[in-house]
Amino acid sequence: MIEFQILPAGTVTSPAGFTAVAHAANIKKENQLDLALVVSETDCSCAAMFTKNQVVAAPVIVDRETLAQNSSRLRAVVINSKNANACTGEPGLANARATQQIAAGVLGCQADQILVLSTGVIGVQLPMGKLEAGIVQAAKGLSRENGRIAAEAIMTTDTRPKHLSITVNLPGGPVTIGGMAKGAGMIHPNMATMLAVLTTDAKIAPDVLDGLLRTAVNQSFNRISIDGDTSTNDTILLLANGVSETAVADPDSVQTFSAALNQLCTALAQMIVRDGEGATKFVEIQVTCAQSDDDAHQIANTIAISPLVKTAFAGSDANWGRLLMAAGRAGVTFDQSKINLWIGVQQPGELQLVANGTPTLYQEAAAAAVFAEPEFKILLDLGSGGGGTAVVWTTDLSHEYVSINADYRT
Amino acid sequence: MIEFQILPAGTVTSPAGFTAVAHAANIKKENQLDLALVVSETDCSCAAMFTKNQVVAAPVIVDRETLAQNSSRLRAVVINSKNANACTGEPGLANARATQQIAAGVLGCQADQILVLSTGVIGVQLPMGKLEAGIVQAAKGLSRENGRIAAEAIMTTDTRPKHLSITVNLPGGPVTIGGMAKGAGMIHPNMATMLAVLTTDAKIAPDVLDGLLRTAVNQSFNRISIDGDTSTNDTILLLANGVSETAVADPDSVQTFSAALNQLCTALAQMIVRDGEGATKFVEIQVTCAQSDDDAHQIANTIAISPLVKTAFAGSDANWGRLLMAAGRAGVTFDQSKINLWIGVQQPGELQLVANGTPTLYQEAAAAAVFAEPEFKILLDLGSGGGGTAVVWTTDLSHEYVSINADYRT
Repeated sequence: MIEFQILPAGTVTSPAGFTAVAHAANIKKENQLDLALVVSETDCSCAAMFTKNQVVAAPVIVDRETLAQNSSRLRAVVINSKNANACTGEPGLANARATQQIAAGVLGCQADQILVLSTGVIGVQLPMGKLEAGIVQAAKGLSRENGRIAAEAIMTTDTRPKHLSITVNLPGGPVTIGGMAKGAGMIHPNMATMLAVLTTDAKIAPDVLDGLLRTAVNQSFNRISIDGDTSTNDTILLLANGVSETAVADPDSVQTFSAALNQLCTALAQMIVRDGEGATKFVEIQVTCAQSDDDAHQIANTIAISPLVKTAFAGSDANWGRLLMAAGRAGVTFDQSKINLWIGVQQPGELQLVANGTPTLYQEAAAAAVFAEPEFKILLDLGSGGGGTAVVWTTDLSHEYVSINADYRT
Repeated sequence: MIEFQILPAGTVTSPAGFTAVAHAANIKKENQLDLALVVSETDCSCAAMFTKNQVVAAPVIVDRETLAQNSSRLRAVVINSKNANACTGEPGLANARATQQIAAGVLGCQADQILVLSTGVIGVQLPMGKLEAGIVQAAKGLSRENGRIAAEAIMTTDTRPKHLSITVNLPGGPVTIGGMAKGAGMIHPNMATMLAVLTTDAKIAPDVLDGLLRTAVNQSFNRISIDGDTSTNDTILLLANGVSETAVADPDSVQTFSAALNQLCTALAQMIVRDGEGATKFVEIQVTCAQSDDDAHQIANTIAISPLVKTAFAGSDANWGRLLMAAGRAGVTFDQSKINLWIGVQQPGELQLVANGTPTLYQEAAAAAVFAEPEFKILLDLGSGGGGTAVVWTTDLSHEYVSINADYRT
């Protein structure tokens, strides 16, 4: 049994050697925070994962290029909200590169030691004058106290900042992992977050770090869906500065660190779902007895993005037929006469609604009571004879989601 | 130039030799129409297409079995609304077969000459007592005058009946095609309608009829999307009774009939979109210069089902970045620096928003004016050098859609 110390108040500056700052650079209206810097006092290894969308924002292109050249000497991340710098063509790329140069000048390092992240409206050029002035001004306030407000500065339609840290005792000593993330729309694997920055004071080689990040993201950010849309900007970064002097290299340390990182990422991912645009429900969908894990994941995802399923969630209507309809359109072959379906609040198996493809004689009031809860679980057993399973976390499609997105830019 | 006579008031009984009836069998509440019969005075050839959902309703299973045995001696279609007879297991199958038996007894034919269609709530057994009494009673009222109310009886969340007929002069004489369809949710290729019944008095062999139907559906019902969900019950039937004595067998007649059928199906499909659940917009999405038609169709569909695109439509917000975001997540490879995007009201090419992946210097007010219209067109040119194209028709995701579906069963 591995024990971790999880700190809900922890942030990206909880690991030693990291500072942060948040600033109102007037990209958003009314003096709201819209710029964050996360800076390490020493060079960092860095692993990253990016959106699989064919249309990618300028910072994604620039960060990929940067990390292809340099994954072991990173120093800082510059993040702006309100403007995604996506679909902005060559001028957008030039602006992302200029942002690297500006930050490098201010922080006294090379441009290829800076990563840039943007989130917000697509198709508008960055206001570079405001951004440059903001970076120069912000850098003066870098401190270990600013992790929380940095998480606030990267918010768009999020209603609350998402941050966390976890400390784990390795054979070589304690290390800390901190993280912040933002949602709250265009949320779907892969990736399931728009932006997340993770930091650690452990000492980890870039190739090890890369494997650790991929494993963690597959169990966390790739298991959540809010609206099925995939952002042009999705990026998750994991920076390891080694300031703790504790190495993560031997199998035991790697395994323990990996478990802690998985837990941190899962917690951040679930925070994103709970703060999904207009979300009033948090629903766990588990699919079992599929021919493969991929089949199970495909079905769970299809249920999670179905507008008819999600509106039934919003209405607290135990309209389970829609769950089976969505499963059936997932592109996976199965025998509907072998399906079993359960729902529950604490455990998914509390109330069976379908047995071998036929409705059970359950009480409608009992089913309605489960769907009326703010959090509940669904278990779909395909009965294929296979052992494929998957879990995803999702939310409902509410009036508020429509309100938020019908008029996002104004 | 082929000239057709299109009758907006036409129905499934416009072709000679067909009668229909609608009845309130008390499956719906408050004496609303919920049962329709469409009957031919002579045996019909029949072609059919069904949902590709893995989970299929009992009537889909029974009709597939029936048509595998008999595609040239069909006599009648029994349709009920309010109850989909889906996810109802063996009892549901027995009920669908019993419905065939009841109708055959009343109409004086064999059970394998009857097709059954159901639409409505999933997971509830059909009230067979009410259905049997209803069929017996309804059959007494069969007449050529009842085509329109038959189209009313198959409605669920539809706000208006959808029916049409078209008359075409073939070398052998005039023939008429009539049709009715219902939406209005779970609408996505394939198929893009829950139920449609098409009739014609032309004389057409089953194998020819099958090819004609597939061609027409691919150009019409498979080009519309309301919410991306695929029903368990989707069925389209085309019955040809030959009463006109005009054969559709030679290439010229087949081609002319095919053009008329395509036009009828496209008109019915567009009626479904215009009456989509909560729809306030009718949007044509055209994708050109893809590597293949399939690629173009995949991208157009992904745009059409994107919740973020659809909520922007609902808000009349020309947030075109979301169109590119959705295109990029369609699973099709393309070069974002070659994209061109236009919008328009009459013609899709009226206002260019993106040229070679970079925003043009268009006026926001001009773009907003297009998105404010109840009907508009979008043209996305992928610039791949290929000639693949596709057109789909879709609608917005409005507050009303959420209201309708959050509480559908009550």
